[in-house]
Amino acid sequence: VQRTSSRLRNFVSASWKMGVDEPKKFIHGLKVGLALSIVSLFYYVRPLYDGVGSNAMWAILTVVVVFEYTVGATLYKSVNRVMATAVAGSLGVGIHWVASQSGEKFEPIIVGTSVFIFAAATAFSRFIPTVKARFDYGASVFILTFSLISISGYRVEKLLTMAHQRVSRIAIGTSFCVLTSMLFFPVWAGDQLHKQTIKNLENLAISLNGCMAEYFKNDEEIPVMNEGIKEKMQCYNSVLNSKEKEESMANFARWEPTHGNFTFRYPWKQYLKIGEAARSCAYCIDSINGCINSEMQAPEFLKKRIREECMRLSSHSSEVLKELATMIRTMRKSPKIDLSVKDMSVAVQELHDALNSLPTNFLRLRSLPPIAEDHPDSHQEEAERSAKASIIEILPLAAL
Amino acid sequence: VQRTSSRLRNFVSASWKMGVDEPKKFIHGLKVGLALSIVSLFYYVRPLYDGVGSNAMWAILTVVVVFEYTVGATLYKSVNRVMATAVAGSLGVGIHWVASQSGEKFEPIIVGTSVFIFAAATAFSRFIPTVKARFDYGASVFILTFSLISISGYRVEKLLTMAHQRVSRIAIGTSFCVLTSMLFFPVWAGDQLHKQTIKNLENLAISLNGCMAEYFKNDEEIPVMNEGIKEKMQCYNSVLNSKEKEESMANFARWEPTHGNFTFRYPWKQYLKIGEAARSCAYCIDSINGCINSEMQAPEFLKKRIREECMRLSSHSSEVLKELATMIRTMRKSPKIDLSVKDMSVAVQELHDALNSLPTNFLRLRSLPPIAEDHPDSHQEEAERSAKASIIEILPLAAL
Repeated sequence: VQRTSSRLRNFVSASWKMGVDEPKKFIHGLKVGLALSIVSLFYYVRPLYDGVGSNAMWAILTVVVVFEYTVGATLYKSVNRVMATAVAGSLGVGIHWVASQSGEKFEPIIVGTSVFIFAAATAFSRFIPTVKARFDYGASVFILTFSLISISGYRVEKLLTMAHQRVSRIAIGTSFCVLTSMLFFPVWAGDQLHKQTIKNLENLAISLNGCMAEYFKNDEEIPVMNEGIKEKMQCYNSVLNSKEKEESMANFARWEPTHGNFTFRYPWKQYLKIGEAARSCAYCIDSINGCINSEMQAPEFLKKRIREECMRLSSHSSEVLKELATMIRTMRKSPKIDLSVKDMSVAVQELHDALNSLPTNFLRLRSLPPIAEDHPDSHQEEAERSAKASIIEILPLAAL
Repeated sequence: VQRTSSRLRNFVSASWKMGVDEPKKFIHGLKVGLALSIVSLFYYVRPLYDGVGSNAMWAILTVVVVFEYTVGATLYKSVNRVMATAVAGSLGVGIHWVASQSGEKFEPIIVGTSVFIFAAATAFSRFIPTVKARFDYGASVFILTFSLISISGYRVEKLLTMAHQRVSRIAIGTSFCVLTSMLFFPVWAGDQLHKQTIKNLENLAISLNGCMAEYFKNDEEIPVMNEGIKEKMQCYNSVLNSKEKEESMANFARWEPTHGNFTFRYPWKQYLKIGEAARSCAYCIDSINGCINSEMQAPEFLKKRIREECMRLSSHSSEVLKELATMIRTMRKSPKIDLSVKDMSVAVQELHDALNSLPTNFLRLRSLPPIAEDHPDSHQEEAERSAKASIIEILPLAAL
């Protein structure tokens, strides 16, 4: 009992902490509650006793399944739901009519076969990447509505009214959702993606600085690893596995209307390119981290020799990263960026020269880690160049 | 028109190719069609004209939303759906009873408030990682059922029969799904995870060999990059972003009963550890790839000098990776693995010695890339050690 209660307490405190850290998640809960209560009361006040089973239900069901955290996701699901219901409804009525015309004997065969074929084809189509990205939810609604309508035993005229009612209920439900999610504290997927990208670049800058400082720290300093630095060094971890999240946010962002500085048809795909570049930087920092934790360490005097150059390079590199983050934030090409990149290139060259001018007997001793250090940076520089290139592509579009 | 038709043709041929490459996806479509047709015909043959709206519907709806690609996912959704419906149903009936006892004036207030509170709390709880991993779908079903029942205007006795009917329909639907997904060509999430892990390790081995061969290829060979090698070198890409997929498969695998060599409560989390190690290997290979594509290249004569050692190390490393893959496949500790690891350690030491014994004037020229090469491998070795450690943890459990 004690273990369960302590686990429960941990659970509650962890979720409370999450809510306090990200009040938007609390607010999302309140929004769902709000949308549902409005729809519920709407039907409760004008009781539709017998209709609850078949009609009002659809509005509530729609609110529950359509309401998502971001506006983009809600819009994506709403549009999918309405479209799929309409298409599947008309197709279902058509099949139903054909079946009812062809005699009692063939009716179940036609219905069964068509349900089988459409359901199988739609279920398969959900594996196709383009369908999955844009119409995954619609496909499942399509199967549902189509099979419900084509097997329902009603006459076609009654079916038409039913289908009409259902579509209108779903439209009510979706418009409640869309309005609630857009009007009360909206969470835009595009906004999230934008902030996430900035945050990732900043995290990379912090990690890079932290790792370099850790690697080249003097032994005179406290040998125990500083907690603050350790935390800083781990910042890049969030970047490593950011791909799927970014892709889904970019997918949802495409559904969103103009908001803030983001226009409709904003080039969200460019963010994915920046994300790609950021991830390859993160892989490099992971390699540097591997050097720090490795058993083979370069001798202290060798480290001292190139300490200056490496530190300068790392500080210039993270300067560039921070500058890029600022550029994305302000959506303006910063005048400083060219200078920063030039500084970084100079620092790369200096480190290179420093390595080449090392007395050769130093190198004989053990030359591995500090030289390996240079490689990630030059690679990083490449990644940054490509990041810069894609940002420059974005800039004119963002300025529209 | 021509553009649309060519795009359509591309789309069809791409999806056809996907289906032929992975016939399981075709079969999944057929299974969905089958399950739906059975449920549909079941109701079609015994027409429940008036009931279609409220009862039979639930069985069909359940099949559509619950049927997933893997058995684990289907079970997860089925269990979640049945449990959540039962819990929300009883809670809803309770609230409804309380509300109906407290007079007409307070009834809508009580119902509205409780819907708001429960919906908000449940919507928020979906952000909590543990809830998200195991009960995400259940939470959405809970909100749905709870609000439907608590706002429905029926008397409590009628509600009870309705709730009972609904749970039984959902049970029918889920059992159809579970049976279809387990009996016809089952796709086990655990199996997928297992195969994916093996495939990832093999891909790493192939990529490592390919990258090294490319890096140390003689200039006398054809300078144009060999297509086969290029493809091999990119194998590690699938490993880089495997995290989310692996986690969701491990989550679903936990729901699966004993199948093949996998028992219930099989330690699926160990696969996540192997995945973690494989990803850090992949990050290293990405760094090597960066060396290959870098503008700064080591001079040819220097490369030649350590070519032997590097190639030996890489072939030993990929030997170890392949051996690990075989061990996972056979679920047996291979007698060769200790030897392979020892060979690899020797190769690391040899490369190290070779680097130290290089004539110093070589190093002065440009020492960067080939030395950087050594670092990823030694890091990789670490990652492999940790992978091995976690496999050895699995072995006794797998042997049960």
